[in-house]
Amino acid sequence: MTDYRRLRVALLGAGAVGSQVASLLRQHADELADRAGARLELIGIAVRDVDAPRDVDLPRELLTTDAESLIVGADIVIELMGGIEPARSHLLTAINSGADVVTANKALLATHGPEIFDAADQVGAEVYYEAAAAGAIPIIRPLRDSLAGDRVQRIMGIVNGTTNYILDRMDTEGAEFADVLADAQRLGYAEADPTADVEGYDAAQKAAILASLAFHTTVPLESVHREGITTIDKSMMDAARHAGYVIKLLAVCERLNGGADESISVRVYPALVDRAHPLASVHGANNAVFVQAEAAGNLMFYGAGAGGVQTASAVLGDVVSAARRHIAGGVGVGESTLANLPIVPIGRVTTRYQITLEVDDQPGVLATVAGILSDGRVSIANVEQTVVGEDARTARLVIGTHKALEQDLSETVDRLAASGVVERVVSVLRVEGD
Amino acid sequence: MTDYRRLRVALLGAGAVGSQVASLLRQHADELADRAGARLELIGIAVRDVDAPRDVDLPRELLTTDAESLIVGADIVIELMGGIEPARSHLLTAINSGADVVTANKALLATHGPEIFDAADQVGAEVYYEAAAAGAIPIIRPLRDSLAGDRVQRIMGIVNGTTNYILDRMDTEGAEFADVLADAQRLGYAEADPTADVEGYDAAQKAAILASLAFHTTVPLESVHREGITTIDKSMMDAARHAGYVIKLLAVCERLNGGADESISVRVYPALVDRAHPLASVHGANNAVFVQAEAAGNLMFYGAGAGGVQTASAVLGDVVSAARRHIAGGVGVGESTLANLPIVPIGRVTTRYQITLEVDDQPGVLATVAGILSDGRVSIANVEQTVVGEDARTARLVIGTHKALEQDLSETVDRLAASGVVERVVSVLRVEGD
Ligand SMILES: NC(=O)c1ccc[n+]([C@@H]2O[C@H](COP(=O)([O-])OP(=O)(O)OC[C@H]3O[C@@H](n4cnc5c(N)ncnc54)[C@H](OP(=O)(O)O)[C@@H]3O)[C@@H](O)[C@H]2O)c1
Ligand SMILES: NC(=O)c1ccc[n+]([C@@H]2O[C@H](COP(=O)([O-])OP(=O)(O)OC[C@H]3O[C@@H](n4cnc5c(N)ncnc54)[C@H](OP(=O)(O)O)[C@@H]3O)[C@@H](O)[C@H]2O)c1
Repeated sequence: MTDYRRLRVALLGAGAVGSQVASLLRQHADELADRAGARLELIGIAVRDVDAPRDVDLPRELLTTDAESLIVGADIVIELMGGIEPARSHLLTAINSGADVVTANKALLATHGPEIFDAADQVGAEVYYEAAAAGAIPIIRPLRDSLAGDRVQRIMGIVNGTTNYILDRMDTEGAEFADVLADAQRLGYAEADPTADVEGYDAAQKAAILASLAFHTTVPLESVHREGITTIDKSMMDAARHAGYVIKLLAVCERLNGGADESISVRVYPALVDRAHPLASVHGANNAVFVQAEAAGNLMFYGAGAGGVQTASAVLGDVVSAARRHIAGGVGVGESTLANLPIVPIGRVTTRYQITLEVDDQPGVLATVAGILSDGRVSIANVEQTVVGEDARTARLVIGTHKALEQDLSETVDRLAASGVVERVVSVLRVEGD
Repeated sequence: MTDYRRLRVALLGAGAVGSQVASLLRQHADELADRAGARLELIGIAVRDVDAPRDVDLPRELLTTDAESLIVGADIVIELMGGIEPARSHLLTAINSGADVVTANKALLATHGPEIFDAADQVGAEVYYEAAAAGAIPIIRPLRDSLAGDRVQRIMGIVNGTTNYILDRMDTEGAEFADVLADAQRLGYAEADPTADVEGYDAAQKAAILASLAFHTTVPLESVHREGITTIDKSMMDAARHAGYVIKLLAVCERLNGGADESISVRVYPALVDRAHPLASVHGANNAVFVQAEAAGNLMFYGAGAGGVQTASAVLGDVVSAARRHIAGGVGVGESTLANLPIVPIGRVTTRYQITLEVDDQPGVLATVAGILSDGRVSIANVEQTVVGEDARTARLVIGTHKALEQDLSETVDRLAASGVVERVVSVLRVEGD
């Protein structure tokens, strides 16, 4: 066996991901040493409660509640505690004491990324976070390195497994949101408090991270437009299926205009996706990131977006990279945010829409609706009219639009609602993927 | 504008890929400088004929036939000439004169990879080759870095666009191989001499590169079992469709057994893929690499596997990485081949098969066939029998097997052919993807 240099690895957190990382580090120690060119010595694991029951067997003597002492003696610090504090302080301490850091903490990076990257830049350390954007799916290196010579035009990502699981079951089983959510909670696909997932907060954090990388721009979380899936019901799902679409919660990161007016938009919302689009076949709790780049064309990255052992794979890949860098020497490369493109609010974005209305089934109603749309600069691509209700006095209009400005569209929908001929605005959904 | 350090970039070749690389290097010079942290100065382009007509406008004074002189003054050398010589000598010269090298040359890496990687190791240089395995699809970094802490169990890749285009059209249009090939040649999807593609040589080179990376093992091209698609006809396509499969040319890289008996198999052949498998929806000239890893689970990488500008994207990503490494300092990381697992011949591989036979439609024939299979240690999973021919004296048997050893299977098929009850062995196809 080769006599490798030893690198001291400190692990912060031994929960769903951390416990798997600890176990793989020990189980594959020899193989990892060959690949990294260094022996990765786990010097300790910081937790809140050293006596808490754990899924995997961890040597009692490695556990400690004293994270600070652990960090100071480490070459590589892996942060898998989650949350903002003390994770943020621990990462800064690690960087300033000369360690390279690995983290899966999307909440922290989406809010304090620049502070952490700057600290690393100051001392020539490197921050690795492959697991923070799409779990086990390698997406950070592709965006940061493989596409570094290209120009990303658009990213459309299914980056939250819980919501994809819920929407997929609503689609395939014709079930209602609340029933599937309850089932998902029972099966462990959704948390007891599902807000972070179903309201799109988790996806928005990932969108901010992906957009920062793709557009070489600092993207504050507040600039990400966010809508969740709680408004999606069975009738919307059925209508989408009927029209050849499926509803997916998408993180969309888009480059707008060109030249001096160049800007970007970052948004998370449920959208209609054509069933022939590769994203439409992403089922269950899987994730996928679809990337359109100027030279490379369309790329898609698919896999498990979460799960303890799956995410641990991405974390360990980062640990090996950090170790190789320690052996190779040299300073960290840092994040490139020099483009710093302006981020436009949602009102300035153009997409296609599908508007579903219930109207009085009387002559002239369609003409009135069409007039309001055209006055609002929303151009109609197609309309389907069906009669609903026992009395046959109500018609349902499903209107597909050409690309329109979000602001024009929402003002127009308000005017439709107030027009007197519209009984109810059933739904307004964006269409993505073309 | 930041005053960056300059790095001298030499380009060898200005064909389909090289001309696009030259054009993007010049077009996006400022942006690339920001991302790389260095100004990438194209100091010259080596070609065979400086006066040859080119697709893109290249400044006449950059073109030269003297590759050697160009290389000696460069920090980064991009090899896009193709072929073994002089590409091999040029890369070695570049490495030994202190440059980092970028290449898309799968033929060279699959045959002389170890020599080139060793030379780089000696001087601490780095070899980048993202474009050599699947064109624009980022697959090298994911395998080499992102999955470095995991254990790849199997790769199934659609890594040749020409054959996927042909098989896809045969599948969707019910056309014959020769007709689609002729059309593909007319449309530029296939070369005038299509041998490298349709006989699987191109895919075998890529399989060798992917397997080397995935299993940390030197995989000589000769150890890759290779079959092409020229034997696939319309009737096989129709039968596959009928049974819920599609035929794809797959590069399969597989880890076999465990523990001390651990070994790998690398093979390229047309195989039946279930229509529900993500690889079945890879259409046209697109490529995709499906990776199964112990911890990460199933991952898929999808995109354009060829094309001048698409491939140029991957090459430029490598150039930016090489530049960042020049700035950061430190020695190259090198390839990890320390696992060096034994590579088993095709006879030792187990897969499922689908065997199609024409037999005399007489009582007892099925029993005879079943007996020969069971004597040969090939266990039957399902059989479909249909009557064919005007006289109704011939029956067609489609036999799906459980997993069997390739050697047992091929001996058994020989015995079937010689048994007297079998009129014709119509086809024997492997089933992959489960
Ligand atoms: N789970 C996934 O599938 C997944 C996927 C992608 C990314 N991530 C990210 O990975 C990170 C970890 O996630 P997880 O699911 O593993 O979390 P988790 O199961 O909640 O585990 C958190 C661990 O950190 C420890 N910890 C928390 N606060 C601490 C403190 N103040 N001091 C010391 N230890 C502390 C906990 O200690 P005790 O065990 O003693 O309570 C626990 O071991 C998060 O940033 C998450 O967003 C997770
Ligand atoms: N095309 C793709 O889609 C693709 C995709 C992935 C990888 N690749 C790989 O990329 C590499 C380049 O492919 P390509 O399609 O761009 O090839 P190509 O169109 O045939 O271009 C080859 C270029 O190299 C020059 N060249 C060849 N031999 C030379 C010599 N002895 N001295 C000086 N210059 C020489 C040629 O000069 P002249 O122009 O003067 O003839 C030409 O400019 C190959 O290794 C290929 O396998 C290609």
